[in-house]
Amino acid sequence: MSSWSDYALQLAVQARAASRKLSTVTTAQKIQWLHQAADALVARSREVLAENERDLANAPGYGLTAAEIDRLKLTPSGITKIADGLREVAALTDPIGQVIDSTVRPNGLKVSRVRVPLGVVFFIYESRPNVTMDAAALCVMSGNAVILRGGKEALHSNLALHRVLRDSLVQAGLPEHSVQLVESTEREIVGELLKLDGKIDVTIPRGGKSLIERVTREARMPVIKHFDGICHVYVDQAADQDMALRILQNSKCQRTGVCNAAESLLVHSAIADSFLPKAERMLKGQGVEVRGCERTRRWIPWALVATEDDYRTEYLDLKLSACVVDSLDEAIERIDRYGSHHTDSIVTSDQTAAERFVAEVDSSAVMVNASTRFNDGFEFGLGAEIGISTDKIHARGPCGLESLTSYKWIARGGGQIRG
Amino acid sequence: MSSWSDYALQLAVQARAASRKLSTVTTAQKIQWLHQAADALVARSREVLAENERDLANAPGYGLTAAEIDRLKLTPSGITKIADGLREVAALTDPIGQVIDSTVRPNGLKVSRVRVPLGVVFFIYESRPNVTMDAAALCVMSGNAVILRGGKEALHSNLALHRVLRDSLVQAGLPEHSVQLVESTEREIVGELLKLDGKIDVTIPRGGKSLIERVTREARMPVIKHFDGICHVYVDQAADQDMALRILQNSKCQRTGVCNAAESLLVHSAIADSFLPKAERMLKGQGVEVRGCERTRRWIPWALVATEDDYRTEYLDLKLSACVVDSLDEAIERIDRYGSHHTDSIVTSDQTAAERFVAEVDSSAVMVNASTRFNDGFEFGLGAEIGISTDKIHARGPCGLESLTSYKWIARGGGQIRG
Repeated sequence: MSSWSDYALQLAVQARAASRKLSTVTTAQKIQWLHQAADALVARSREVLAENERDLANAPGYGLTAAEIDRLKLTPSGITKIADGLREVAALTDPIGQVIDSTVRPNGLKVSRVRVPLGVVFFIYESRPNVTMDAAALCVMSGNAVILRGGKEALHSNLALHRVLRDSLVQAGLPEHSVQLVESTEREIVGELLKLDGKIDVTIPRGGKSLIERVTREARMPVIKHFDGICHVYVDQAADQDMALRILQNSKCQRTGVCNAAESLLVHSAIADSFLPKAERMLKGQGVEVRGCERTRRWIPWALVATEDDYRTEYLDLKLSACVVDSLDEAIERIDRYGSHHTDSIVTSDQTAAERFVAEVDSSAVMVNASTRFNDGFEFGLGAEIGISTDKIHARGPCGLESLTSYKWIARGGGQIRG
Repeated sequence: MSSWSDYALQLAVQARAASRKLSTVTTAQKIQWLHQAADALVARSREVLAENERDLANAPGYGLTAAEIDRLKLTPSGITKIADGLREVAALTDPIGQVIDSTVRPNGLKVSRVRVPLGVVFFIYESRPNVTMDAAALCVMSGNAVILRGGKEALHSNLALHRVLRDSLVQAGLPEHSVQLVESTEREIVGELLKLDGKIDVTIPRGGKSLIERVTREARMPVIKHFDGICHVYVDQAADQDMALRILQNSKCQRTGVCNAAESLLVHSAIADSFLPKAERMLKGQGVEVRGCERTRRWIPWALVATEDDYRTEYLDLKLSACVVDSLDEAIERIDRYGSHHTDSIVTSDQTAAERFVAEVDSSAVMVNASTRFNDGFEFGLGAEIGISTDKIHARGPCGLESLTSYKWIARGGGQIRG
């Protein structure tokens, strides 16, 4: 216990010292580091791949599924892609030092708000090792020191990747402890780190619901949460039905294991008899298991009966809940009740319906005539993202560089005092 | 226990229903309500003053000091000022619906970020009843429902003020439960409300340190904290010494019981022998008790010896800790170690020193040649504030209307799917 708390404190103290230096580093230095890290990663890919092999060998012992092992596996071309990702972060606009707004007060005081780093970020994530590099790049580019805690399944890969990062930080003249990796899979260390609210400014957990709940419960510092996506596609009575089919298929089937995939279909009753038979053929063709309401099952007879639980489930699989509704209001009401306020899409040619949906659906992203899958940092033009926040505080939806910043107020005067 | 949890749940459910309606209310309706509430407050001032008398009669029983009783006391002119405050909020720019940024992606998707309310705010505060009205005005103007929990010392005043608010909400056609007051001083209710993270979007505690620590520990939803202000005035070797005296006096003495008052003085050793004798005369004249380092006490011999604790104390009184430092670096280092990252000021004519101070001092507001007392919503041009955040997440420094908002991503397409 005490040794884990010592280790946690050491990580946090080193991170804080690094963060103070990082807050005054120039953009050019950060860009240089990212390019050096990318080059070093490619140059040392053999070392990284060998360590990844060790993780792959251990994977069955951790009970990983074939899909999970696939996500864990690194390849030479995968490493090239990760290196390209670092160079893409280097091409983003540095948010640090940006003047958000400024004003001269009647007493002559010049007041401005300037973007600054958050300070120290504690990032907790699961198996995919490329996340190690993306997170390090985003945190350091935004002037933050980061403590990385990856999944135990990827420990050897992450250790190898971290060595590349650390060496390139030293080479680029940035603080060595700008990026630290928790070098043990011991669970207690996370608990100890979550107590250090004076040293760590924010914790970002990305992973399963139970992880995020544990972190939210234990953390003494603010947490940016990334909860489930129970995303809806609502096919309005005024929908272009071919478009609706394409959007439904893409939202549900293009990639199932991600938070912005659709989990639930809502269809306006006025078009159920024309749309649902087409949806039935498409969904059967894609191998999607449907769990529907009574009316859905008139047109999709092979669908299972949906329970209340189905409508609240993030399947992350080729499964879809479905319900026929009698109005836009009912659709909005169901999205509020069963959804997770992540991403919801309406398909309609009716401008008024679209604007009501946009105004009244309280989700991180609301789509009109587009796939739910677009709620993503790259797709929205932010570049890489550290996650998709389901919080309303601080950052909502895709979190890019700006989400990793705070601001300070600066007031420059000539001796002003308050009367 | 169970009845308090029922009551808390009822407040939260009613607040959520109100917040859904409020999110689509027009700016004109909110402005109209604020004016009606201001008029009603003045018209019903006799009722409010009578209830305030009951609180004043109970005040000695709560052990309130004369200064605290003075802050609790309402007068006809005080009520006029509160009403004017409501009208001032009505004149602020409504942040809801503002497009923060927008872009058209290469695939034609039109992506924008639009400001939306946070939803339901739980606001916990201490004695002054005017805060009840300011908080209600700011929350509703930014489209939020609010649950107010004032101090027990102001309960009757707050109940009367809340009746005015509620009646004017109904009169203006806004949801009655947009503003609710916890109508009991039972401590347990706060704990029950802090559990309702699905219903309450953010808790804002404003008061003593122990209150904020309790809320941070118990709250399951995000918290915007308002901790102490251990604010410094650093008099650099290149300071205009007359200006430094004025700024020190104003920062320490203009109002002592507030978070942006200075608590600690740092003086560069190169000017200690010319500046500290002048400071000694000013501080003695103002009746300030000084606790200083050994070098300070050479020029202020009547100063007490400062302990480590003194440098970490928010006196909120005519007391000041003082220390002579040998460099700008030492000043910055001490501010980081002993300060609370709230407000710190440098007095200097040296541009380079000023810019280093601005860049390296990690506080919500950094002042150059100006009083620490300017870290305030009105002084920075935000209008009314709901508090001064010492967090780096979401909102930092003075929190006006914008701090009570989130945003949503809206993507408008013509059938786009992800490839």
